[in-house]
Amino acid sequence: MDRLRVVKIGGNVIDSPESLLALLQRFASMEGPKVLVHGGGKLATELSGRLGIVPQMVDGRRITSEQDLEVVTMVYAGLINKRMTALLQSMGCNAIGMSGADGNVILAHRRPVREVDFGLVGDVRQVNGPLLQSLLKQGISPVLCAITHDGAGQLLNTNADTIAAEVAVALSGLFDVELIYCFEKKGVMRDAENGDSVIARLSPALYTELRSTGAIHSGMIPKLDNCFAALERGVGRVVITDGETIGGEHTHGTIITTEGDDSH
Amino acid sequence: MDRLRVVKIGGNVIDSPESLLALLQRFASMEGPKVLVHGGGKLATELSGRLGIVPQMVDGRRITSEQDLEVVTMVYAGLINKRMTALLQSMGCNAIGMSGADGNVILAHRRPVREVDFGLVGDVRQVNGPLLQSLLKQGISPVLCAITHDGAGQLLNTNADTIAAEVAVALSGLFDVELIYCFEKKGVMRDAENGDSVIARLSPALYTELRSTGAIHSGMIPKLDNCFAALERGVGRVVITDGETIGGEHTHGTIITTEGDDSH
Repeated sequence: MDRLRVVKIGGNVIDSPESLLALLQRFASMEGPKVLVHGGGKLATELSGRLGIVPQMVDGRRITSEQDLEVVTMVYAGLINKRMTALLQSMGCNAIGMSGADGNVILAHRRPVREVDFGLVGDVRQVNGPLLQSLLKQGISPVLCAITHDGAGQLLNTNADTIAAEVAVALSGLFDVELIYCFEKKGVMRDAENGDSVIARLSPALYTELRSTGAIHSGMIPKLDNCFAALERGVGRVVITDGETIGGEHTHGTIITTEGDDSH
Repeated sequence: MDRLRVVKIGGNVIDSPESLLALLQRFASMEGPKVLVHGGGKLATELSGRLGIVPQMVDGRRITSEQDLEVVTMVYAGLINKRMTALLQSMGCNAIGMSGADGNVILAHRRPVREVDFGLVGDVRQVNGPLLQSLLKQGISPVLCAITHDGAGQLLNTNADTIAAEVAVALSGLFDVELIYCFEKKGVMRDAENGDSVIARLSPALYTELRSTGAIHSGMIPKLDNCFAALERGVGRVVITDGETIGGEHTHGTIITTEGDDSH
């Protein structure tokens, strides 16, 4: 099977024009089929502020109102997605920017109301693998933003990490998929204060240990749960990295693995 | 050759949620390959106003500044394009929303500065016919917004009427193309005050006559010049209509034709 790389970049990369340009250049230089998934960044918050939209919080959690959805649709699917697509085109990468509604590429359902009504937030229901495969076969690289749809005409705000994982899983029957999460650190750290403490390979056993000692906590937990779930659902390899080596032969960072615990 | 319909809708349709919904339903119900091209509408002007962006005019003509381009990219490529795509999906039409940068579908160059520097405005250079054909073959309907790119990383604001004409021309070697411009009137009028004076067929001779009498004037002239040019460049049929019958067997309105002058 051909190797496919699914690269997810977050707000920290998008907010810095230099970092974004460098990362897009590395993405463009990657050979073989590839998919880029991007989150938002400060631009949406800034635009909301300029428009006087007050963030709505329920029990300390941000919810997505109609107005918020308009803003993220404009910023994620419009400004950021099209800027990135145009830049990739200029770098010789035939990118196609997409929301989940485009070609029905990511169908979601509105998150059911349990303790909190998150508003217009979607959980991924189905990824259109055949369309992605058809584009990839034509040498086109999909660039997916974090907006999906419910099939009944409603756009939904969706977590970009989850989109990346679901796309990687959906394509893992067709390709040998490597899922690469780029974030602000070099990888998963043993010690947040020590930039050199990157964990080379993170196994389930080590993950359990580092959670119990508190070395891995808060936002990293759902991120890593996502990674292990993706491996269990057929993704060949998951890497967490700062993205500085994604264009190279080997991507540095933390390899998330279900194969034994050989990182000690 | 298969018949292909390229439908262009403008701001007047987009500004009214009821008109837009009705038109999308008619578009969705059209059988066979089809492309939708849309302009902007009041939303971009409204957003600019809320953001305190002052329109820049040179010699009475609106120019596109960096800030204007950000707004139209957010509104045309983001909000309007994705809303329309999600609505079409809900109506059983497998739409894919695209800017010109996506899959390099519409390459433009920045309009050269002659008397006026229009700013970040693009004139169409090349339409990616093979990509559109590949999507259409898969039963996917491209929904194109009026944002293009220059291949060097710059997005450009582009006239939607021109995009529709250029797409129709580019695909006319592959399909028997009907180009349908939907606007606020039932067709081209002999008498602007008389809603029943729709011209059924407009030939070059009649066009010349009605220009000389002043019955056709101002904004209709570039629109009609575009239509005749499209016919000369291989488009099978051009219709100007209010869009109320586009889903039916025959589209009512004014047929623009280069075949003799049989409208008298």
